[in-house]
Amino acid sequence: MTREKLVALIREKGSYLCVGLDTDPAKLPAHLSGDADAVFRFNKAIIDATRAACVSYKINTAFYEALGTKGWEVMEKTVHYIGADHFKIADAKRGDIGNTSTQYARAFFEALPFDAVTVAPYMGEDSVRPFLEYEGKWAIVLGLTSNKGAQDFELQASGEGLLYERVLKTVSGWGTDQNLMFVVGATQADAFIRIRELVPGHFLLVPGVGAQGGSLEQVSEKAMNKDCGLLVNASRAVIYASGKEDFADAAAAVAGQYQAEMAAYLQRFNG
Amino acid sequence: MTREKLVALIREKGSYLCVGLDTDPAKLPAHLSGDADAVFRFNKAIIDATRAACVSYKINTAFYEALGTKGWEVMEKTVHYIGADHFKIADAKRGDIGNTSTQYARAFFEALPFDAVTVAPYMGEDSVRPFLEYEGKWAIVLGLTSNKGAQDFELQASGEGLLYERVLKTVSGWGTDQNLMFVVGATQADAFIRIRELVPGHFLLVPGVGAQGGSLEQVSEKAMNKDCGLLVNASRAVIYASGKEDFADAAAAVAGQYQAEMAAYLQRFNG
Repeated sequence: MTREKLVALIREKGSYLCVGLDTDPAKLPAHLSGDADAVFRFNKAIIDATRAACVSYKINTAFYEALGTKGWEVMEKTVHYIGADHFKIADAKRGDIGNTSTQYARAFFEALPFDAVTVAPYMGEDSVRPFLEYEGKWAIVLGLTSNKGAQDFELQASGEGLLYERVLKTVSGWGTDQNLMFVVGATQADAFIRIRELVPGHFLLVPGVGAQGGSLEQVSEKAMNKDCGLLVNASRAVIYASGKEDFADAAAAVAGQYQAEMAAYLQRFNG
Repeated sequence: MTREKLVALIREKGSYLCVGLDTDPAKLPAHLSGDADAVFRFNKAIIDATRAACVSYKINTAFYEALGTKGWEVMEKTVHYIGADHFKIADAKRGDIGNTSTQYARAFFEALPFDAVTVAPYMGEDSVRPFLEYEGKWAIVLGLTSNKGAQDFELQASGEGLLYERVLKTVSGWGTDQNLMFVVGATQADAFIRIRELVPGHFLLVPGVGAQGGSLEQVSEKAMNKDCGLLVNASRAVIYASGKEDFADAAAAVAGQYQAEMAAYLQRFNG
C-alpha cells in the first residue's frame, strides 16, 4: 500500500488505529476450543467487528509460530481474510545478513500479502535494505520500544546521542518516508518531540497504548505530523476486551472508542 | 542439549562444525524439482552425508518461511530428521517484548525440538530472558556479525567501548555459559581476542567461514577456549559444494575436510 493510499484511508475513517492480532489460544473465550482453527475463527470475528474502526492490522508472528505449521497456515488465512483495504503489518522483528533478509522479504511480501514487516536494526544496512526494494511495501524499523529492556541498549549513549537516535538518523538515510517507518513505543511519550526532530515526515508505528499503559492523547499531541504520520496499535485491549461469547461486540466497542478519540485528535492536532 | 553433552560430542568427533541448512529451492541441483518437497529431500541427503563430520545443524528459518506454510512444515520435518545427537540451532534472529519472546521460545523449544535460537539483542533483557528459561536450551545472542552492516551500529562507540562490547558485557550477565552463546562472525578475526576477554567461557557461534571469506585457522587460534567454545558454521560452502547429482558426496567431502582441519586445531590450540 502506498503512503498516499494509507493517508487517504486515515482521513476517510478518522482513524489511525492498528488492531494487533496477538491471538493466544490459551486466552480465547471458553466457547471456542483452544486450537489453531479456533484462532482463525476468533481472528475472523475480530476482523469483521473492527474493520470499520481501524486502518491497519498487525499480526504478531510469534503467536502463530508457537502453533507450528498449523499456526503459519492460520496466519496465511488471516492475512488473506483482512484483504486489500487495510494496511497489513507482519510484526516479525526480522533482520539478518542481506541474502537472508531477502528471503524474509519474500516470505512476507511475496508468499504472503503483507504491506509491511517490522525489522530489527542491530545488523545494519544490508539487513534492512531487502525490505525496501518492493514497490508499495514498507520496512518498519525498531526505534525506541515500549518495554523495560529499551533501557539496556536503545537508551544508552552512542556517540553524541543515544543509540535509538543514531538508529533513526542512520536508518532514515536508507529509504524514504514512502517505504520506511519506525517503531516507537507509546510508553516513551517524552521522547516523541526529539523523535519528530529526527524523522519529521516518517510514519511511526506506536504500540504500547492500552495494556502497556501508554497515553493515546499524549502520543497524538506530540507525534502527529501533517499526514497524521501515526499508526497506533492496540492488541490485548481490543481483542481480549471480553473473554466471553460477546468478545467480538466488545472488541468492536473498544475499537470504536479508539476511533472516536482518534477522529477528535485528527481535528485537534492535525488541523 | 547440555553444555556437557555438546563438549563431549566435540571431543568424540574431533569437530566443532555446524552445517547451515540455508536451503534455497532456486539453488537445488537440476535433477531435484525446485519445490518444498525437494528441499526436504535435499536436506535429508545433506544430513545423511554430513552427520558424521559435524556436531550441529543450523536451520536458517528465512529460507523456509519464504516457502510459506509448506516451508514451515519442511523445517519441522528437517529438525526432527536431524535427531537427538546433534545440536540443533534455529537461526531465526528473534527478539520482542517479553510476552512475545515467550511465544517465540515456545515455537522453537516446545512446538519444535531445537536446542538453541539466535536472538537479536536490541530490545534488551526482557526480549532475551524467555529463551533462557528452558533446561538444556540456549539463546545465541548476536554479538558482532559477519556482514558489512556490522559497521553501522555494532562497531559504533557506546560509552567507553563499542556497542557489541556493551552487548557482550550486559547480556552475559543475564544467563550463564550453560544457556547463553554469542554470534561472532568469522570475518571479524581481529576482534576475537577482545571478545575472549569479555566472554572467556561462553560458546561462540561463528558464521562467515567459507562463502563469506573468514579463516577457520585464525578463528580457532584466537577464540578457542578449554572446552573448545566454538561452533563454526559453514552453509553454502558445504550444501552447494556441487550443483549436480553428486551434491551429497561433495557435501560430505567438504564437511570431512572441515572436520579434519578442526581435529588438528583441537590438538594444536586446545591441548
